[in-house]
Order: sequence, then structure tokens, then C-alpha cells
Amino acid sequence: MNVQEIIAKKRDKSKLNKEEIEFFVTNYTNGNITDYQAAALIMAIYINGMDEEETTNLTISMTNSGDILDLSELGNVVDKHSTGGVGDKVTLILTPIISSLGLPVAKMSGRGLGYTGGTIDKLETIPGYNVNISEEKFKENVKKIGISLIGQTLNLAPADKKIYALRDATSTTESIPLIASSIMSKKIAAGANKIVLDVTYGSGAFMKTKEKAQELADTMVRIGKLANRETVAVLTPMEQPLGKSVGNALEVIEAIEALKGNIKEDVKDVVLELGSNMLKLAGKGNNLEENKNRMLENIKNGRALEKFKELVANQGGDVSYIEDTNKFKKAKFILPVISKVQGKVKELNAEQIGKLSVFLGAGRIKKEDKIEKEVGIILNKKIGDKVEKEEIMAYIHANNEEKAKEAVERLSEIYQIN
Amino acid sequence: MNVQEIIAKKRDKSKLNKEEIEFFVTNYTNGNITDYQAAALIMAIYINGMDEEETTNLTISMTNSGDILDLSELGNVVDKHSTGGVGDKVTLILTPIISSLGLPVAKMSGRGLGYTGGTIDKLETIPGYNVNISEEKFKENVKKIGISLIGQTLNLAPADKKIYALRDATSTTESIPLIASSIMSKKIAAGANKIVLDVTYGSGAFMKTKEKAQELADTMVRIGKLANRETVAVLTPMEQPLGKSVGNALEVIEAIEALKGNIKEDVKDVVLELGSNMLKLAGKGNNLEENKNRMLENIKNGRALEKFKELVANQGGDVSYIEDTNKFKKAKFILPVISKVQGKVKELNAEQIGKLSVFLGAGRIKKEDKIEKEVGIILNKKIGDKVEKEEIMAYIHANNEEKAKEAVERLSEIYQIN
Repeated sequence: MNVQEIIAKKRDKSKLNKEEIEFFVTNYTNGNITDYQAAALIMAIYINGMDEEETTNLTISMTNSGDILDLSELGNVVDKHSTGGVGDKVTLILTPIISSLGLPVAKMSGRGLGYTGGTIDKLETIPGYNVNISEEKFKENVKKIGISLIGQTLNLAPADKKIYALRDATSTTESIPLIASSIMSKKIAAGANKIVLDVTYGSGAFMKTKEKAQELADTMVRIGKLANRETVAVLTPMEQPLGKSVGNALEVIEAIEALKGNIKEDVKDVVLELGSNMLKLAGKGNNLEENKNRMLENIKNGRALEKFKELVANQGGDVSYIEDTNKFKKAKFILPVISKVQGKVKELNAEQIGKLSVFLGAGRIKKEDKIEKEVGIILNKKIGDKVEKEEIMAYIHANNEEKAKEAVERLSEIYQIN
Repeated sequence: MNVQEIIAKKRDKSKLNKEEIEFFVTNYTNGNITDYQAAALIMAIYINGMDEEETTNLTISMTNSGDILDLSELGNVVDKHSTGGVGDKVTLILTPIISSLGLPVAKMSGRGLGYTGGTIDKLETIPGYNVNISEEKFKENVKKIGISLIGQTLNLAPADKKIYALRDATSTTESIPLIASSIMSKKIAAGANKIVLDVTYGSGAFMKTKEKAQELADTMVRIGKLANRETVAVLTPMEQPLGKSVGNALEVIEAIEALKGNIKEDVKDVVLELGSNMLKLAGKGNNLEENKNRMLENIKNGRALEKFKELVANQGGDVSYIEDTNKFKKAKFILPVISKVQGKVKELNAEQIGKLSVFLGAGRIKKEDKIEKEVGIILNKKIGDKVEKEEIMAYIHANNEEKAKEAVERLSEIYQIN
């Protein structure tokens, strides 16, 4: 078997068997297959596709390329993954709620890349919060308080890391078999035996249409089944950013406010939809509406917030920031975005706002880039809201005056009002 | 403009414009575009194709990536190129004939790679023959004696070198736009204003069918026209090796014998077909049959052989080898291949024989490989010939006894007799 034959098969629209896929993944991970050979194969997969069996074999080979976390001692652990969004602070709100309802949360999250943020970057805005802890300590935390959120300390699916970087540089990201195998290989390696997927669609998401999102969701659910991980997918629109804030500390503040009961409708919908499914998957209630009510109840009675404080304290974070979010460091320049016209917000493109937040310093273009924790955007007006002339629609939080001014201009152009 | 956008366009079956193709070729040649990005684009071109305009723009960009030889001072110069064959010694026979008929020959040739040989390797088997001479000396030679055959001393189409190496490693060789642009970019850069192409088809050629060969020929002729190079293509079957010998010195000996009047029918057909078209293109006779007769006449009267001697002498080679081909060094082991049965030769696969000659040391797999000048194969029997039991069908010329014996076994299996 050699890589040229494998490339030629997929180039000619033939199906690759398990051995061929494994040969490629193993040898690409260890460097025997070059980046340019992998790029040729990935492009052939993009154009000619892969069927369910091929995609599952690709996923399993990628999972097996690195460490696999064993969480079986924790019982039913439900993991959650979103295919990416702008202003998506759902994990920060959702996980304390379901943990407070008795469902163990043992979650490794990534850092942000491109215009979508990462949970780990957000948690690090809380002074002292340690995202780098050992596997043993991680499991110990979950046993002790029922929740731990950490960074990717293990070498999960290294094949995916290599393929993902290559796809970004070769315009082969938006392919269902490639997206599905990338997500599912990491989720399976991360050790949970049940998985809830938030598949986003719209301008701010990988999948631009609901139909494509459904196709991706179906593929991942089937892979989950074949890999013995019970998997449920929920579809979420991502035409505009989720909630009111975009930016690391700003999103943490919004999440804390949400746990205190002040939660935006769109964020609440996603949190409840995902959480009710996670509870159901874990055998903690088959009725989704009842599950949602129990979640809301634990916001009201303060148990979810209490669980979040416990999490932060247990990982070395300063809980006083949760009690008083005014303690979070502010950006140097906070400028309003003022409407020049009267009307209604028709469009508020999530991708453009995501890119604007990267411009401000809230995200990374390359892995090595540093982020600025306190910068970002607060959206007072969202799609459907009425706007008066001269009314403040949003605020730009920036550490550089020139950038702040440019961002104000750009955001007022992103707001489509009529 | 960035390379990801260009890749995405071809990935989505869109047409690339001139600026995009130029951007890719320029930036890949100078290293701004990586091999893996080029591999992704090349695979997309392989699968989704290119139209005539795109292929021409690709060719011209590749031509412009390096030196372009200016041969205008020599008048009408006709270049010849073959898409590759096993045992193809046509250039060595053809060029002295047409030069002896007054048509200037100024030809840069390549070295062999894979199972097809290279004219330069063959010429170097004549002791003293210098293939590395300056551009000025090259033109001077043509002016003085009407012929010069040298190696690629100039940096012709460096983009093609990079893309060609990449295609080999990524299973993207057999693509008409990629083959056509590869050949024509080098031919245009090589300075001739008229081009005759020998497009081979069959088991020993890139194009496995006559239809595909015709498509490739048509594409190259159109590119030639658009690039202001009058181009004619001739189709040649390559089911079995051309002539009787495969291997560098062995083929030179066959070529010298041919110029002395002892020319195999299949070789003669190709030489006359190409030469008559070259003479016509150069304005030296519109009637192809008459041109062929003049060529045969110059073999008979010894002028073509005289021209070959002049060429060899002028480039420092030892002419006594031409006069007496027994002077060429022989391989250490010359073993006969004896028929085990009686019958008729039905098949004699050119590709398999080419690979066998590489096994013996006559060709290169990698550019750095050294070749053995004297090794190779002599085919006494070819397709259609009757064979008696115990009759000698061929000879293996090798420098290693083990290899010689193995080659005998392999060649007797390649001979399909019934």
C-alpha cells in the first residue's frame, strides 16, 4: 500500500477501505506522508466526498492517533460541543446548571481560533483560574464537586490538529466528512460516553444553511452511534452573535449575569435546549420540558451560580469576581456606536462582528497570537429591535483609540437598519 | 488576491482568470505559496479540469517563470518533442536528417526520468560529447554546422519543474491541462518558432488510448497557436518499445545503424512522419510524401550520417565510435532470452520493459540516481513475429549476474506468445 494509490482511488471517486484510511492517518501523523500528499488527498475528499463508513473509519483512525481519556469511573458523563459561533458563552452557563442537577461535567475545551472564541480563553479572564491541571486532578475535581473545565492538556487526536491546519490553508474546511471526523474524533478521545452537539448555521457558522447543518448533524450522530457514544444534535441559528457581548471578559460577565437570572432570550433558548437533552441522555429525565423547568429553577434558587463559584474556587480562581463583576479590568476606551437613522435592525452579520472582535484583539488569527482579555463589543440592539435616531446601538471596548474609532465605523456599517 | 481564494474557485468548478493563474505560478515558483497549497490546487485542476483559455494562461505563466531562449537570429527553427516512449531514439536519427536537408536544429533535451529515456543521457555515451555548453556557443554551433543538441543549461520553466515533481508524488500526472502546459511551457521557452509534437499512446505512454492522445494533441496545438508557435502533432502507438533496443548506448548504436541505412520499420515510420511535418512547417516542401523521400535519400547518400558525425565532432565527441560501433563499451553479462514455446508474439508491454530497463540500471527513479550507460535490452522478436521453440527472442545486457538472470526471467514473462 502506498499513499499515491490511496490518493488516486479517492481522486477517481472510489471508496477507501479501513486499512487505507488508517494507513493515511497513521503515516501522516508520524510524518511519513508529506503535507502536500495529504493536501492532495484532502482536496479529493472535499470534491468527491466520503460515505458514512469512510467518515466513521476516518474518525476512529484520528481518535486513535493520540491519547484517549478514560472517564468510565465517573459514570455517565455527557460532553457538549458547538460547531462554533460568535458570542457563544453557552458552556459557561450550561455546565454549572447541569452539574447542579447532579450530572457530572468533565470537559476539556479549546482556545479560540479565527473569529470564534474559546471557553478556555474566557475562563482565564478570571484571575487565578488554572486551566492546566493533570488528568488525575481533573477526575478528582469531578468526583469532589461534580464539575471541572480545563484546557486540552492531553494529546487528543493529533491527526486532527495536522489535518485541521492543512484544511485552513488549502480551502478545504467546509466539507461534511472532514468537519464531522474532526469534531467527533476529539469528542470520542475526550472520554465522555454521551455527546450533545450544538450544530450552528447561518452567516456566523461553518454551515451557511439549515439543510447543510442538518446533514452535518445527521452524519455526526451516526458516527457517534457506530463509535458507541450516544449522540444527540441540536440545530442553532447563528445569523447574529449570541447574546449581547462578544469578547472574552465581556462574555464571562454576561455568563455570570445569566447565572444570576439576567439571561438573554436567545442564550436561554440554546442553554435549555442543550441542557435538557444532556439530562435526558444521562437518564435524568425523559421529558425535555420538565428538564428545562428544573434548569430554570436552579438559576432562580441560586444553585447554578453556587456551582459556578465552586468550580472557580476549586480551580484557584478569585470568586470575588463572580460576586462583583465590576472587578473585571475594563478596556481603556469604551466608545458608543450611535445610530444615524431611525428604524429596525434587519441584519447584524455574525461573521463580520466576529472578525471585528479579532481586529480589536479579542481573537487569534494564528495560534501564537496573544489575545486582549478585556476588549470586545456590547450589542444593545439586535435583529428585530427598534432604533431611534441618535440612540446608542452598541459599545466598542478597545485598548487603542485608533482601533476603537475604526471599529465604531465598521460596526455602524454592519448594522443594517431600515 | 490570495491562494486560498484561487483554490476555492477551482475546487468549486469555476474558471480561473489570467491574473489568478499568474499569481499562483509566480508565487509558487518563488516559494510564497507552499507545496501543500499547490498540491490542493493541482488536485482540484485534475478533478475539475481547465478550459482552453485557462490551460493556455497556465502554459504562458509557466513559460514566463524562467529564462526564454531567443533563437530568432537563426530563422525558422523547428523543435520536436515526444510525450515519452520506451526505446525512443527518434531524435538521434531525425535531427541529423533534417539538418542535412537545410533545416536548422537547435534543441535542448532533458535527461530520462522514470521508465522513459532521455536524449542527453544517450548522447553522453559517446566519449567526449559535451552537453553543457553556453547559450552563445549553442547558437554559434547551429550557425556553423546547422545542428546542436545540448542539455537544459538554461533555467527553462522552473515552475514546471516544481509542479512536475509535485504531480508525481500526489497522483496528478495524467491530466490533459497539466500535461499540455508542462510540455508546451518548456517548448515555448526553448525558443523554436515551430513545434512538431509526437504524442504517444498505449501501454508505454502517458495516454493509454488513442482518443485521449488526440485530445492532448489538440490541446497542445491550440496552445501553440495562441502562443504564436505554429504547432503540428503526430500520433504514435506505444504498445511495445520502438525499434529493437532499450538502454542508452544500445539505442545510440541502433540510431547510428539507422543513419547507415539499417533502420527498423516502426522507427522509420515515426522518423519520416515527424521529419516530413517539420520540413513542411519550415517552408521546405508542402508535400509530405516528397519530404519523406528526400529524407530517405539523405540516409542512402550518407549525408545524414555525415551530419551526425559533424555534430558529434563539433561538440567534442569521439567520431571513431560512430564509424565503428563495436568500440562502445559492452555490459559484463549478455544473456539470451530463449522461448519455451512455439508461436507468435502477441504482446510485449512497453511499460513493463521500460521498468525492466530501469531495474537493470538504464534509467532513473529519482533525479539523483546514476545510470549505467551500457546496460539494457535487445529485442530480436517483436509483436507479430513468429517464434520457434528454443529460439532466442532477446538479449539482456547487465553488469550484475543476479540482475541479468532475474531480468531474463522477467522478460520471458513479458513476452506473450500464442
